[in-house]
Amino acid sequence: MRSGLFITFEGSEACGKTTQIQRLAAHFTAIGRESIVTREPGGTPAGEAIRDLVKHSKQGWNLTPEAELLLFTASRAQLTRELIQPALNAGRVIISDRYLDSTTVYQGIARKIDSQTVKRINDFAVGDCLPDITFLFDLDVATAFERLAQRNDVADRIESQPTAFFEAVRRGYLELAQKESQRFVIIDAAKSEDEIEAEIWATLTARCADKI
Amino acid sequence: MRSGLFITFEGSEACGKTTQIQRLAAHFTAIGRESIVTREPGGTPAGEAIRDLVKHSKQGWNLTPEAELLLFTASRAQLTRELIQPALNAGRVIISDRYLDSTTVYQGIARKIDSQTVKRINDFAVGDCLPDITFLFDLDVATAFERLAQRNDVADRIESQPTAFFEAVRRGYLELAQKESQRFVIIDAAKSEDEIEAEIWATLTARCADKI
Repeated sequence: MRSGLFITFEGSEACGKTTQIQRLAAHFTAIGRESIVTREPGGTPAGEAIRDLVKHSKQGWNLTPEAELLLFTASRAQLTRELIQPALNAGRVIISDRYLDSTTVYQGIARKIDSQTVKRINDFAVGDCLPDITFLFDLDVATAFERLAQRNDVADRIESQPTAFFEAVRRGYLELAQKESQRFVIIDAAKSEDEIEAEIWATLTARCADKI
Repeated sequence: MRSGLFITFEGSEACGKTTQIQRLAAHFTAIGRESIVTREPGGTPAGEAIRDLVKHSKQGWNLTPEAELLLFTASRAQLTRELIQPALNAGRVIISDRYLDSTTVYQGIARKIDSQTVKRINDFAVGDCLPDITFLFDLDVATAFERLAQRNDVADRIESQPTAFFEAVRRGYLELAQKESQRFVIIDAAKSEDEIEAEIWATLTARCADKI
């Protein structure tokens, strides 16, 4: 029986999820509750190998949208069964940087793969293992691009998409959050890190009190 | 418009497909017709990386059946769109060592993933790009194991399956060939290499005369 707490973070690149995931994990530590932090694609040895393959695919590979979707969901199928489901059954807290909503939005809405097909393949990958709560970090595209420029990261394949793709991703996430409003909490990612941290912890302790 | 000829070879390990694929390609060369030989998983740079990941996955990875299926179909989606479909549209001959039937049998029947789900994911991966003809190499399990022992190969993950798995694969292929008898040709893989070579060429020139 599942008695743990499954929290996911979603949003476009540079929206600040990673920082807030670290802060949230620190909150759990502070109250004497361990949490497991994971990410997608990745989170397992096989998943990390898939992540390398997708995110840093060599020039000229030109991964098709179909292959990309199947690789992301392969990583997810492994993560769900190897890590997440057993941890939830053992009553633990899992925090994941991205999960099935990323595929719904990036492959389904932004890359225009038929939404019913994306849903079926996602369902196959995760079974009934859905998050208890999902924080969507919403950020306007101009700010996201400014932040990316400041990072000076070597742009990987996903981050080198044009502005229109980012816009489609943002709209896709907002539509999804509206459809699944029971599970989603929208965070204004332009706020300060401290404000966001406080908002997330307050929301969690109010909405998932029985599992904290 | 598709005007090429798409030939696939299926069967369990050590059934002799690879040898016959080389011989068939030599027949096409001999009549002045080039053919493209490919394989699954693999056949494209991305697909070969996926092949390495699946076939030589490190000990302890324990790929779930779901992740395995999604990885095989990811490789297939890439192969179909990058290589097979363009080649068929250009009127070429493609010979593939395994294709979608391998997933139907290995993941669907032998690993018992719901057959409707396997079909949907396969359909998503290949679209309408089905083989014109599929040669199924049928071999009893005892002979297959003797051949594998003689090869002295380092057993990879797939080939280290127990006998019952091989039996299930064999039965699965024969059932599938019966269901799709228009496309499948069953080859008795215990025959000599020369006999099989002659049988395949005779069958092809009779059944696909308009495309050779």
